[in-house]
Amino acid sequence: MTQKHALDYFFKPHSCAVVGASKDPAKPGHQCLAAMIRAGFSGELYPVNPREQEILGLRSYRSLSQIPGPLDLVVLCTPVEVMYDVLDDLGERAQTRGDVKAMVVTTAGFSELCTEEGVARQATLVKRLSEYGVRLMGPNCLGVIDTRGKVDTTFLLGVDMTPGGISFVTQSGALGAWFVQAWSSHPGPVGFSKMVSLGNMADVDIVEVVQYLGQDDTTTVIGLYLEGTSDPRALLEAASEAARRKPVIVLKTGRTSEGERAASSHTGSMAGKDQIWDGAFRQYGVLRVHTMDALLDAMRSFDKLPLPNGNRLFVITHAGGPGVYTTDLVFETGEVVLSTVGEEVKQNLKRRLPPHANVCSPDGLIDMTASGTVAQHAWATEYLLSQPEVDGAMVMDMQIPFFSVAQLSRELGETYRRLRENGVSKPLLAVMMHGRWAQEGRAIFEAAGVPTYDSPDRAVAAFRNMVRYASIKRRLANRQRRIEGWEAPSGVPRMLTETAAQVLLEKYGVRFPATKSASTLDEAVSAARQLGFPVVMKVLSPDIAHKTEVGGVCLDLRDEDAVKRAYAKMLENVRKKAPGALIEGVLVQKMVTGGVEMIVGGLVDPSFGPVIMAGSGGILTELLKDTVFRLAPVDREEAVSMLQQLKGYKLLSGFRGKGPYDAGALADLIVRLSELLSKEKIKEVELNPVKVLEEGCIAVDALISA
Amino acid sequence: MTQKHALDYFFKPHSCAVVGASKDPAKPGHQCLAAMIRAGFSGELYPVNPREQEILGLRSYRSLSQIPGPLDLVVLCTPVEVMYDVLDDLGERAQTRGDVKAMVVTTAGFSELCTEEGVARQATLVKRLSEYGVRLMGPNCLGVIDTRGKVDTTFLLGVDMTPGGISFVTQSGALGAWFVQAWSSHPGPVGFSKMVSLGNMADVDIVEVVQYLGQDDTTTVIGLYLEGTSDPRALLEAASEAARRKPVIVLKTGRTSEGERAASSHTGSMAGKDQIWDGAFRQYGVLRVHTMDALLDAMRSFDKLPLPNGNRLFVITHAGGPGVYTTDLVFETGEVVLSTVGEEVKQNLKRRLPPHANVCSPDGLIDMTASGTVAQHAWATEYLLSQPEVDGAMVMDMQIPFFSVAQLSRELGETYRRLRENGVSKPLLAVMMHGRWAQEGRAIFEAAGVPTYDSPDRAVAAFRNMVRYASIKRRLANRQRRIEGWEAPSGVPRMLTETAAQVLLEKYGVRFPATKSASTLDEAVSAARQLGFPVVMKVLSPDIAHKTEVGGVCLDLRDEDAVKRAYAKMLENVRKKAPGALIEGVLVQKMVTGGVEMIVGGLVDPSFGPVIMAGSGGILTELLKDTVFRLAPVDREEAVSMLQQLKGYKLLSGFRGKGPYDAGALADLIVRLSELLSKEKIKEVELNPVKVLEEGCIAVDALISA
Repeated sequence: MTQKHALDYFFKPHSCAVVGASKDPAKPGHQCLAAMIRAGFSGELYPVNPREQEILGLRSYRSLSQIPGPLDLVVLCTPVEVMYDVLDDLGERAQTRGDVKAMVVTTAGFSELCTEEGVARQATLVKRLSEYGVRLMGPNCLGVIDTRGKVDTTFLLGVDMTPGGISFVTQSGALGAWFVQAWSSHPGPVGFSKMVSLGNMADVDIVEVVQYLGQDDTTTVIGLYLEGTSDPRALLEAASEAARRKPVIVLKTGRTSEGERAASSHTGSMAGKDQIWDGAFRQYGVLRVHTMDALLDAMRSFDKLPLPNGNRLFVITHAGGPGVYTTDLVFETGEVVLSTVGEEVKQNLKRRLPPHANVCSPDGLIDMTASGTVAQHAWATEYLLSQPEVDGAMVMDMQIPFFSVAQLSRELGETYRRLRENGVSKPLLAVMMHGRWAQEGRAIFEAAGVPTYDSPDRAVAAFRNMVRYASIKRRLANRQRRIEGWEAPSGVPRMLTETAAQVLLEKYGVRFPATKSASTLDEAVSAARQLGFPVVMKVLSPDIAHKTEVGGVCLDLRDEDAVKRAYAKMLENVRKKAPGALIEGVLVQKMVTGGVEMIVGGLVDPSFGPVIMAGSGGILTELLKDTVFRLAPVDREEAVSMLQQLKGYKLLSGFRGKGPYDAGALADLIVRLSELLSKEKIKEVELNPVKVLEEGCIAVDALISA
Repeated sequence: MTQKHALDYFFKPHSCAVVGASKDPAKPGHQCLAAMIRAGFSGELYPVNPREQEILGLRSYRSLSQIPGPLDLVVLCTPVEVMYDVLDDLGERAQTRGDVKAMVVTTAGFSELCTEEGVARQATLVKRLSEYGVRLMGPNCLGVIDTRGKVDTTFLLGVDMTPGGISFVTQSGALGAWFVQAWSSHPGPVGFSKMVSLGNMADVDIVEVVQYLGQDDTTTVIGLYLEGTSDPRALLEAASEAARRKPVIVLKTGRTSEGERAASSHTGSMAGKDQIWDGAFRQYGVLRVHTMDALLDAMRSFDKLPLPNGNRLFVITHAGGPGVYTTDLVFETGEVVLSTVGEEVKQNLKRRLPPHANVCSPDGLIDMTASGTVAQHAWATEYLLSQPEVDGAMVMDMQIPFFSVAQLSRELGETYRRLRENGVSKPLLAVMMHGRWAQEGRAIFEAAGVPTYDSPDRAVAAFRNMVRYASIKRRLANRQRRIEGWEAPSGVPRMLTETAAQVLLEKYGVRFPATKSASTLDEAVSAARQLGFPVVMKVLSPDIAHKTEVGGVCLDLRDEDAVKRAYAKMLENVRKKAPGALIEGVLVQKMVTGGVEMIVGGLVDPSFGPVIMAGSGGILTELLKDTVFRLAPVDREEAVSMLQQLKGYKLLSGFRGKGPYDAGALADLIVRLSELLSKEKIKEVELNPVKVLEEGCIAVDALISA
């Protein structure tokens, strides 16, 4: 007998008590008990209600302590005021029997209220359950559904308990309900393994559940609805670990609600929490989607289908318009393409399909026309899925007068099942665009392992997500994530002088242009002469972060006269625009000409810890917000992927006859800066701009606050 | 009796013959006749089939000529080979009775085959029908459905003939089927007026149908599925005329399939047909959507709801997660916001709603929590829709244990109906996220005039489209579109010299920097001295379009030495990179410093005629493809809207302490260039860059090909 995991008692308990069970169908305690019965729970089920003898045909108990047999799981559905009595009762049972292992508290009225009373109540609940050795799900949650454990602690109507491989974990009960009800309304049965509504996460939290599901053999795909978590790195680590074996798909909301941080650098002002989340999901191999429909579709597609080996989709339809429409969709993001098969394959298709069929124009698309038969559909699907140039196929089916949709689904479903049995491991997706007239055909397809979609939009999006995860999986297989300790920043940020910043950065291999400091005009002129023209001159002041904005930077000074004029002008500007600032002199710097301007920075975020940013420089930084984030430290491969994600990457790789520039050197710089962020006690760093040259890269300006 | 429009005979014929009617349920001729009967056609219905006495209970005729009564409409469903016999028969009837006015040809096998035979067949069909005075819909189409005329020439199953205001016109029969079947599968009845499947448009084309629907009183909203048309301006004009009175929504495909044009300028290379369509739709007030679902949702929302006066949406829900999720959606594009109501309103809400309800945090959102009652929902909806700060409301409804969804729908529907009767003219949208358990509630809502959606995504998109059209309608009310004649470009493009181009452009008020031409080094130096440093020098050659790319441009020459060095270097570059080019000398130009670089251009497209483009200059042009198009000429308001549509608009309006720059002068330049394009015989023009200064703007480089 293998040892039970603590969470097993939620998903496969041998016995369960529903406290607050009721005869009144409007009460959650009634609905929960009814749900357990409907789910077919096969263990002992005990209603607890001191005022009833029997509820829904089951003997009702006065208290937990009176339940005679062993008890694994308790579900609390009472009004919140009753909680203290229940805890006393549970405490008594803990002393006498000590058998209860898990408790789902669906009741609301805890810290989600943001009142002192609610917070205190939750603290009591946690403390006492911990004393009794009882793990807590919730409070303020729907709890769990497990199709194999036949457990359902929710009050949802009509849950379809067909077992499958999908597990969905949600920080919103309502989104859990959406999931279950969308599922159970699907034309064909879509099996799932578990639904977990976490509620306030007073004890069992999202990290532990993701770890558990990562190890759970009945779970083939994990979906997450995430609003936030106190330890993002732990969640990402757990998700990444699971993602090595099965897709982890997240719908993360709160994109617009998280405030911008007060910041003294671009890095800071760009580092919205959502931008960091976005970068971290990529980094850790978590597939992000932005709508509930996309999440639902992705989960069921992954559960039913094998992963594609590449991104080449073949589309088979019998009408022109949907073909044109789908071609647009396929090419929308550039991640999926229509597949190009060889000339011989095209000739064979032309020979076997209706005379006026539109074959491979464009490549990767067949429009059979309305005269295509069921047999021709089945043959073409089988033939194309056997071609090495095809990574997946999509059939699109309209209602047409000449054959029955059910017949098509049956033949195609059979064909696909045979292909799978013969070892062809490629996805087939079916689009059925005729509303309720498609239901029968969809059910037949689904039963044969072919997921169906009511629009090509949804099918193409599902295939795209499969392509993304296939690539994530390959990548994760070759990498070891490492988590490093870090300390939350504290104290008031203090800006290092430019010179101090350079010294620290040079330790990490950051190169700067030759620079001299000068405290008089004569010194400045002489410095410029020694460095060689053209030069750049900047005011040197610990009080000024953005020198350009106070007129404290002069570029491209080509001779001594220019240096003299600039010196006077600059001091005048700064005195006017930053009257209180201490001016220590100027820096004279050899001007770097040519290359592409980029920005690299980083900061220590209170919840994410050190994060590193790369972006397009100059006006592009703010105009496009063309920046990407990752959690630091990053390795070189990750640094390269950051650069590739930028719109400005085109500039680096060569553009309009210029370049290519040394993106490799920039990637190395990112790696080293990410190490600095992880090791040194600083709050924020920014190199802006970094000039990326044909060989090497050089930081023109640097800011560090510690 | 008002005179009948030629197209009336398709939509409200008094009598109809189905040629090719059949007893075999698999034949289109059977399905079409059955559809007419199911539709409840109340005029005379005549099956024509020489081999039958009776079909589906109706007397069958041997030929059209033998039909005794008057005959308006003929539907042809025979195999294509029979067409010639039918035409002879029709010709005979034309001579003897002359009554047939309209013919729908559903049969395929015409010019869509792209074979000589097919094209010839179509030409014969058109010619002979024209001789007989019969208008033709198709061939290769589904024909028409009209819920009031009770006509249905399609073979679609289960068409719900509930009359409503939506008319859908489609260039793809399959998309027409999708429309009808999505409609008829909707939880509540969604009435429509007409579905028109145009097929090959051999006679009746999309322009004529849009004009007709624009005038049609039963049509409140027009939806178009468009793949292409030979006369885009005529279609845009018709759509724009209709859009003054009712929304015209288009789904235009072929975004990725249209080839890029071979081009000698950026303007040309950016001018993909889809980019021109996109600009033209905005210009002409046609609302563009990109998915079929968005089209379907927009049409039914417009049909049911009054237009909002502004973009401020209030969201009422009873769960947290969906609220967070919806907040993200609302702010996604910036076109819609959550509304902010006053403090007193917030206090009233707090007083009347459940104690733990989340009221206006964020603004514009109420989460009632699961304890909100039906009465509280109804009261809050009514109260909020009565506030001047609220332009529309959305209720989001999950299945919760404490009340019935049907009851909520009934009360809210009743509330909304009363509000509408009392003159409150604001939209209310209902989101019902619980799959098939929502069907009853949705039907009740829909019957009360509240459209329902199965996700907040779809409802927010629908509201956004209503906001867009409300703005379009205000704009169209104040404007008169003008169409001007233009000639398609012909002959080989010939590049004007820079000087000739400048002369022509100056006629239209385009300003250039002071410039002198020089044919020797000495002349160049002297020119620079006269103009004043710094100067720019460019090679002068009729053979070189992109001077920069052959090293034929030198910027920022600050003294005579620099001019001398640049002169030598430039000639060397050009001789190396463009060895055959005739070099006439150099242009020396006063250098324009400061300002923002933009690009303005235009070309005469073979189908759209003259089009004008504006875009961000410098690297942004190609890196971001940040360009927008309109059909020329444009007025100043349109020119301003072009600039506002650019990502680079931020640069013009002031950015990082620089600017604002004279966007007004740039708009004037666009207007004048659009006039030049409409009046002069040129093929392409490009000003790149145009420097927009704090006052005025100045073209630094110009290209014209004629």
